[in-house]
Amino acid sequence: MFFFFFFGHVTQPSVHILGNKTHSVTIVAKATCLVMTLKCSIQPNNSPKLMDLLDDTVPGIGTYEDFNTIDWVREKSKDRDRHREIANKSKQSTVALLFSISDAFSGWLLMLLIGLMSGALAGGIDIAAHWMTDLKEGVCLNGFWFNHEHCCWASNETTFQERDKCPQWKSWAELMVGVSEGPGLYVVNYFMYVCWALLFAFLAVILVRAFAPYACGSGIPEIKTILSGFIIRGYLGKWTLIIKTITLVLAVSSGLSLGKEGPLVHVACCCANILCHFFTKYRRNEAKKREVLSAASAVGVSVAFGAPIGGVLFSLEEVSYYFPLKTLWRSFFAALVAAFTLRSINPFGNSRLVLFYVEFHTPWHLLELIPFVLLGIFGGLWGAFFIRANIAWCRLRKNTSLGHYPVLEVVVVTLLTALLAFPIEYTKMSSSELISELFNDCGLLDSSKLCGYTSNSGSTSGSVNATAANGLGARLAGPGLYTAMWQLALALVLKMVFTVVTFGMKVPSGLFIPSMAVGAIAGRLLGVCMEQLAIRHHERDIFRGWCSPGADCITPGLYAMVGAAACLGGVTRMTVSLVVIMFELTGGLEYIVPLMAAAMTSKWVADALGRESIYEAHIRLNGYPFLEAKEEFRHKTLATDVMRPRRGDPPVSVLTESGMTVEEVERLIADTTYSGFPVVISQQSPRLVGFVLRRDLVISLENARRHQEGVVSMSPILFTECDPPMSPSAPPAVKLRSILDLSPFTVTVHTAMEIVVDIFRKLGLRQCLVIQNGRLLGIITKKDILKHMAQMANRDPDSILFN
Amino acid sequence: MFFFFFFGHVTQPSVHILGNKTHSVTIVAKATCLVMTLKCSIQPNNSPKLMDLLDDTVPGIGTYEDFNTIDWVREKSKDRDRHREIANKSKQSTVALLFSISDAFSGWLLMLLIGLMSGALAGGIDIAAHWMTDLKEGVCLNGFWFNHEHCCWASNETTFQERDKCPQWKSWAELMVGVSEGPGLYVVNYFMYVCWALLFAFLAVILVRAFAPYACGSGIPEIKTILSGFIIRGYLGKWTLIIKTITLVLAVSSGLSLGKEGPLVHVACCCANILCHFFTKYRRNEAKKREVLSAASAVGVSVAFGAPIGGVLFSLEEVSYYFPLKTLWRSFFAALVAAFTLRSINPFGNSRLVLFYVEFHTPWHLLELIPFVLLGIFGGLWGAFFIRANIAWCRLRKNTSLGHYPVLEVVVVTLLTALLAFPIEYTKMSSSELISELFNDCGLLDSSKLCGYTSNSGSTSGSVNATAANGLGARLAGPGLYTAMWQLALALVLKMVFTVVTFGMKVPSGLFIPSMAVGAIAGRLLGVCMEQLAIRHHERDIFRGWCSPGADCITPGLYAMVGAAACLGGVTRMTVSLVVIMFELTGGLEYIVPLMAAAMTSKWVADALGRESIYEAHIRLNGYPFLEAKEEFRHKTLATDVMRPRRGDPPVSVLTESGMTVEEVERLIADTTYSGFPVVISQQSPRLVGFVLRRDLVISLENARRHQEGVVSMSPILFTECDPPMSPSAPPAVKLRSILDLSPFTVTVHTAMEIVVDIFRKLGLRQCLVIQNGRLLGIITKKDILKHMAQMANRDPDSILFN
Repeated sequence: MFFFFFFGHVTQPSVHILGNKTHSVTIVAKATCLVMTLKCSIQPNNSPKLMDLLDDTVPGIGTYEDFNTIDWVREKSKDRDRHREIANKSKQSTVALLFSISDAFSGWLLMLLIGLMSGALAGGIDIAAHWMTDLKEGVCLNGFWFNHEHCCWASNETTFQERDKCPQWKSWAELMVGVSEGPGLYVVNYFMYVCWALLFAFLAVILVRAFAPYACGSGIPEIKTILSGFIIRGYLGKWTLIIKTITLVLAVSSGLSLGKEGPLVHVACCCANILCHFFTKYRRNEAKKREVLSAASAVGVSVAFGAPIGGVLFSLEEVSYYFPLKTLWRSFFAALVAAFTLRSINPFGNSRLVLFYVEFHTPWHLLELIPFVLLGIFGGLWGAFFIRANIAWCRLRKNTSLGHYPVLEVVVVTLLTALLAFPIEYTKMSSSELISELFNDCGLLDSSKLCGYTSNSGSTSGSVNATAANGLGARLAGPGLYTAMWQLALALVLKMVFTVVTFGMKVPSGLFIPSMAVGAIAGRLLGVCMEQLAIRHHERDIFRGWCSPGADCITPGLYAMVGAAACLGGVTRMTVSLVVIMFELTGGLEYIVPLMAAAMTSKWVADALGRESIYEAHIRLNGYPFLEAKEEFRHKTLATDVMRPRRGDPPVSVLTESGMTVEEVERLIADTTYSGFPVVISQQSPRLVGFVLRRDLVISLENARRHQEGVVSMSPILFTECDPPMSPSAPPAVKLRSILDLSPFTVTVHTAMEIVVDIFRKLGLRQCLVIQNGRLLGIITKKDILKHMAQMANRDPDSILFN
Repeated sequence: MFFFFFFGHVTQPSVHILGNKTHSVTIVAKATCLVMTLKCSIQPNNSPKLMDLLDDTVPGIGTYEDFNTIDWVREKSKDRDRHREIANKSKQSTVALLFSISDAFSGWLLMLLIGLMSGALAGGIDIAAHWMTDLKEGVCLNGFWFNHEHCCWASNETTFQERDKCPQWKSWAELMVGVSEGPGLYVVNYFMYVCWALLFAFLAVILVRAFAPYACGSGIPEIKTILSGFIIRGYLGKWTLIIKTITLVLAVSSGLSLGKEGPLVHVACCCANILCHFFTKYRRNEAKKREVLSAASAVGVSVAFGAPIGGVLFSLEEVSYYFPLKTLWRSFFAALVAAFTLRSINPFGNSRLVLFYVEFHTPWHLLELIPFVLLGIFGGLWGAFFIRANIAWCRLRKNTSLGHYPVLEVVVVTLLTALLAFPIEYTKMSSSELISELFNDCGLLDSSKLCGYTSNSGSTSGSVNATAANGLGARLAGPGLYTAMWQLALALVLKMVFTVVTFGMKVPSGLFIPSMAVGAIAGRLLGVCMEQLAIRHHERDIFRGWCSPGADCITPGLYAMVGAAACLGGVTRMTVSLVVIMFELTGGLEYIVPLMAAAMTSKWVADALGRESIYEAHIRLNGYPFLEAKEEFRHKTLATDVMRPRRGDPPVSVLTESGMTVEEVERLIADTTYSGFPVVISQQSPRLVGFVLRRDLVISLENARRHQEGVVSMSPILFTECDPPMSPSAPPAVKLRSILDLSPFTVTVHTAMEIVVDIFRKLGLRQCLVIQNGRLLGIITKKDILKHMAQMANRDPDSILFN
């Protein structure tokens, strides 16, 4: 009966598989089983729910261990199953329909909550950091919780010329020693400045060490890795959130050369992860959770730079791995909510989201593209230098005894930073303030030294009118500007050195702001030089038409901005998102061209000196299994060169679909460390049936031993659909077809590795089986690919640590 | 010797394949060949250059026929081979190094050229359309090539109150009949307006019919399909470019309810395609060409709306299929170049890129979100209605005799449009001008009827001061505004009807502008209502604080903009790109929230009434094989349900790797229409070896018949690596391993279709083979998938026409 059934059912859809009559007996034996398989699986509506068993029966199946990679295909298909179930139920009752609608909108609600929470946290961090930075210098007598600006705001005794001085604000020297001028004042203030800096930095590192080791660093390399499908438990937990928020304020206030932008992305992702717990849809599914985290990283950049569109593009370009269009739209929503939350908090009192928002009005000249490209080259060189130096320093920390004293390291670096920073005006102020001042154009009444042109150098405003008549003379450099220039040059060197040693210490540290500060200083220096050149030679042909009396020749602030973009681009290799973030900071479409010229040059120069961005370099330093989507694999190797087992190795460890006992399988598990095993028809005929994950197998066997009656070591394990005939006295079989992945991904031995890499990236695979002419020959895992790529790039293949 | 070699080499990397000793003879015979295969392919550096033969030996191999789908994997791997070759050569000589550098930068050069050319064309189109639109009303005596605005610009006799009237500009009535007022003037002008409109439309449709049938329509559905990997020869050719550019000007000038935005995308893509011919890298590779086309569609939107970032996001979200990050960056560059080219042409004389650029200054109130959401609902309803009505109309045109008279259709529609449009001020003007007027805020001296508030209704400016004292009274609606209101309401109905019948006629027609016009009218109407409501009830609680004397209560222009966004969103289902384009038109971050609220509501409402955007609906109407990336496949079918052959069909047509003759293969080709054939080991053992494309096979066989000596019908065809022993008298074998794809994509019968669809989308496959336990069972093509998806969505599966 089976035989007829076989001919009636199988030969038609398949090609002739029964031609070779000499083996008909064995083939028919197998064929009966094949028929059963087809019978059970071929009907669309009766197909077994492969995933149901995973979800419902045995707890733990379908989850992942720490430091392992998720299976994107499985997660996405779990979500689709879930969605299908809800959609089916929603037709049955009104309650189910309401549930289905609330489920559909839960994503938007989650985005709203993430936006609100991240925006509020960012506002809090801004306010607290501003206050504590000022605390290093003095305290407000009206209330210690006022920062310098707020303290003097309410005061009636301030003049426009000296906005920063009011009797309510006392520097530490005035308060403690009572002196208000002279060297004593300076020394006491110096001492207090260093003390506060040390205290803040010490607190920060101690808190990180004690409560949340994951709170250190910028977090972006780890978030990139997590988004690519890696599991790091606790990295986005509530302790990390609390400690990172507090220590970020401390670290920024301590005056170390670091910024809050990267950590804000981490904070936003922590918020997202915690809020995910309240939504079953996202809590239970690692792929869906990663969509939310992608949106959260957009939120982080949105609040850090007040640039929602730039944030979304940053997430798309730099951080995310799997970024469907739906996520793009939701990210944008979340980024916007966060930006508006932050704006309603108004941390800087200027109804802007960032301190260094700026508006330019002078147009730029085509010839200025030359200095802009020069800034791009500088940015690229700085980026390449920074990455190498920082990685070398981090490697030193890792490999020598330096790594054993993280607290001491932070304290020493803070001490040095504070000692050297205090005497120079531009390093004493916070990096954000510095950038803001460098970006700004000089107004006629600006009191900053950077605006120390001859017209402003006299303190009386009467001289303005005197020199304005002469026109261009008003923009000639005065002594104030010369002082500012050499102080800036000194600040540039200090910033460069300290940024290299600071990034990677055990405190929260972002490098957007320090990189931008380096670029802004270099840009402003070049800008002032160009300005003076143009003024002094305004009669020459090339500068003709640049300068007209009463107006600025060129905008040194624009140079600072272009420089900042170039340096940030060199370090992070951002492109579109960088330009859009900068565009959102200035708001003028016409300044995109200089920014783009600098960003392009910077990326080309930096790429020529080393392909990796700082984040990728840190990912590699830490050995995370991250498959970079941007870098194309260009070598001409084949799947057969990468697959395990290699030539000369014993054959791949497989399970057979029937005929193995519990004991044999347990021994195989104990003897190997593979995360999964292919299941074949038999050892003699290694034709692939499916793939089973180690974790699922271990859990199922334990479960069977514990809960299924009569299971002993000699019980057979069956992955088949139908039971083979067994004697009644034999122990009961353990049926494991439910944990078998019947559609494992396969490539042939001839498949080019470039295609294999592409498949892994685009589908998010963990492993892939290699077959030739229908026979299983080996297996390629993500780790194998990463090792192979490292090998082809002449790097150490053993640097990849995790699965 | 072979036998030993076999054991020494193969058993180790593979699993045991030699257990079944009874068949050792046959197996060894096959095994020798297996060894040869492994020998040749296993060494990484000696692996045969699979693609070289395709490129070099037989012309035509590796190319595609018209109306066929490309193989993304093959194209990309061809490009990588090319790149590898250049990289290898560049190490050998300086010339090769220079070539390699120029090759690397050719992409940027191409982008620059596309930007320049598209920007220049867009500028020309703007200027010509502006001039010809005015030509319908009159002519400039100073020179017929001046448009109305330029004509009166130079005139000294214009007053500020009546900017549009100057003696140099003569309406047709003045010129022909000599009357300057009275009903005669009106009738003659009416007549001339209709005549010119008919002439323009007639010329447009005749030119399209005669020279470039592909120049009609918006082009976006076809470009979407082309970008997804379809071949439509001539669609982006030089004739299409020339004719589309000319007829676009004619069509826009004729006053039909259509816009130039969609066609500008088509024009930019034509430019890109033509410029690709000058770069070998892009000419020869369909995948690379599509990267360039993706960038070109960004360019099109960039020049259409003056929104480079929005254009890039439009390309990413709406048009592109394969959009790597490198393309994102290059698209941005090209979009920026195009925008700046257009700006330097300055077609509107306002140093803006579009006519309807606008800046708002009044903040909006939180409660206004209610009318904004209402506009969103209106937009969604309009979108759903428009798509259904337009598709029904197009279907009618297709299925009835209406389709046989395209010229007549255009003439009749133009006649009706012109006849009905002339009497109403808001339909008489071009849609862009209308949108510009609706977006604008009313200044105190604005002479437009839309600003006919009580303060402005008297023609003397003295009354302004009188009513300004009373404050809010100045914004009460006057008789001018009431007239404007009912004219707008009439215009709304006309625009809606005419847009439905116009889109799809045989002239170039975009629907961005008409959709936006519909939304802008609706928005302005609602905005004025809200304004009057707020003014008349300004003492009520909910409106308290909205109005303050001397300032506007609310901005009706903002409502127009929000309405435009909502309607455009409803029709195209754009999300992020829509909001960003609108943001770039206004330049204020704070207006993103209303835009986003309306866009979200509009999309939800429209999606609830029908999932497809207008472009997808037209793609389906035309039966293009387009695999939508946004819509998830959610049905629970398996690969086995979709694969061919179906149950009951004869087995899949396969070739065997040896043993078939030229005649047999030719007969198989003649008997079937499949685009490719799987190659298996033998009919008895259908284990998959590779896949060969029909076109490659046909060309190779023809080539062998023609050029290879001694090939007769009985010559064997070999896909094997080694030659089987043959008698010397036998005809020479045709060796075709070079055209064999040794790494075809496979899935198992159990693979869920959702995963198969995902693989097809992400990897850009044309076909995929279905195996079970190592045996080939069937094949799934892109067309099968599309048919299956249509079936599951209860649509006609036979609507998919092409491969």
